Amino acid sequence: MMTPYQLLYWDGLQGRGEFVRLALEEAGVPYVDVARLKGGMPKLTAALDGEQVEHPSFAPPVLKVGDQLIGQTANILLFLGAKHGLAPRAQEGRLWCNQLQLTIADIVAEAHDTHHPISTNLYYEDQKKEAKARARDFREQRIPKFLDYFEGVVQRNPGRGGYAVGSRLTYVDLSLFQLIEGLSYAFPKTMARLAPSYPGLFALRDKVAQRPNVAAYLRSKRRIPFNESGIFRQYPELDK
Amino acid sequence: MMTPYQLLYWDGLQGRGEFVRLALEEAGVPYVDVARLKGGMPKLTAALDGEQVEHPSFAPPVLKVGDQLIGQTANILLFLGAKHGLAPRAQEGRLWCNQLQLTIADIVAEAHDTHHPISTNLYYEDQKKEAKARARDFREQRIPKFLDYFEGVVQRNPGRGGYAVGSRLTYVDLSLFQLIEGLSYAFPKTMARLAPSYPGLFALRDKVAQRPNVAAYLRSKRRIPFNESGIFRQYPELDK
Repeated sequence: MMTPYQLLYWDGLQGRGEFVRLALEEAGVPYVDVARLKGGMPKLTAALDGEQVEHPSFAPPVLKVGDQLIGQTANILLFLGAKHGLAPRAQEGRLWCNQLQLTIADIVAEAHDTHHPISTNLYYEDQKKEAKARARDFREQRIPKFLDYFEGVVQRNPGRGGYAVGSRLTYVDLSLFQLIEGLSYAFPKTMARLAPSYPGLFALRDKVAQRPNVAAYLRSKRRIPFNESGIFRQYPELDK
Repeated sequence: MMTPYQLLYWDGLQGRGEFVRLALEEAGVPYVDVARLKGGMPKLTAALDGEQVEHPSFAPPVLKVGDQLIGQTANILLFLGAKHGLAPRAQEGRLWCNQLQLTIADIVAEAHDTHHPISTNLYYEDQKKEAKARARDFREQRIPKFLDYFEGVVQRNPGRGGYAVGSRLTYVDLSLFQLIEGLSYAFPKTMARLAPSYPGLFALRDKVAQRPNVAAYLRSKRRIPFNESGIFRQYPELDK
């Protein structure tokens, strides 16, 4: 049997690690969520930037594959997609998936900044006024701009099945599922209003949720519920 | 002769396009900077998300290679690095380069947000107060955190020559050059104070600047000077 992958990510939140977890779960490959084990946190920290680490990571998630450490969410998915059939085989399709994933990473970073527009070193409560202003721009300008884009990608895809790329599920579909779920958690009113404009994306969300491996994962204790430690946070004053 | 690459990016600023330009210039491959041609802007816009485009891009830069459009800076560099000897041949090295480039993209996005912490749809003047607060955090917390990381990467690299990855120049070195140059332009006081702590990064910056192709490019009119339309903007009130 292959040595299981080790996922290095904070315990207690979905965060960026969730995009990796969804790919591992859909692929059905064995992995250990290191920080959730007893004594896992020091191991995580050491692997990130311990003195002995030749390829340190600026931040988790990091995937440990044998002796190799792979950091940055989109980079981990580039690796997993190629290895486990969650990306096209041809280079052009691989680059297209990577481009879409990087655009997802952009909106995810912006979603984070709605509650921390000034500093990640300050509490939300200490930047609430600025958060309200940034969240308003995010709701009114940025979410529609990004979702228009991704809806267009799904609609223009000539492959059958309603996926983002080609005629088979890729890691981009899993990440779009997580994006729609996250935005719907953090901005329920906004997303309820916007949903009818994005039939392709919401159908894709439902389709991904029904994949047997994903559905089993979502029902399991391995799926940490959305909460206010993650990227997508439900602060009612930031939604309208 | 090969058809020249077409670079699709705004005219008049370095922006994220500059990371791509540096790779093309160092590799010595022919390319056309489309928006700088007469009538180039409508062509750029059409290529980004015209109705006929199967692989639209959310934002430039985009590289047009024959009929293929490749968007997202790090993704373009992944392609160019493999094709033009600006990345290692083995997959592990490729992923490591990509990881570093994505971490550079993270600090570049944060540098942008120092002058636009609330909205890209508002003028800087309308978010100046928030910009001062965010810039302070960026100067005091984020720049040192990222530069500590990259300095560690250069110092730990077992390859000779002072590069970030292995014993040869990669696109990551070109991007680190641009990062140090950009931060030094936008935050001259901060960077003058920090420089002695990062000998590896500043030596790498100098080394890259002296590469014949890069040096010729920097002296040419193709290198647009830093200015206040780009990502790295010199607003004295944001530096201390």
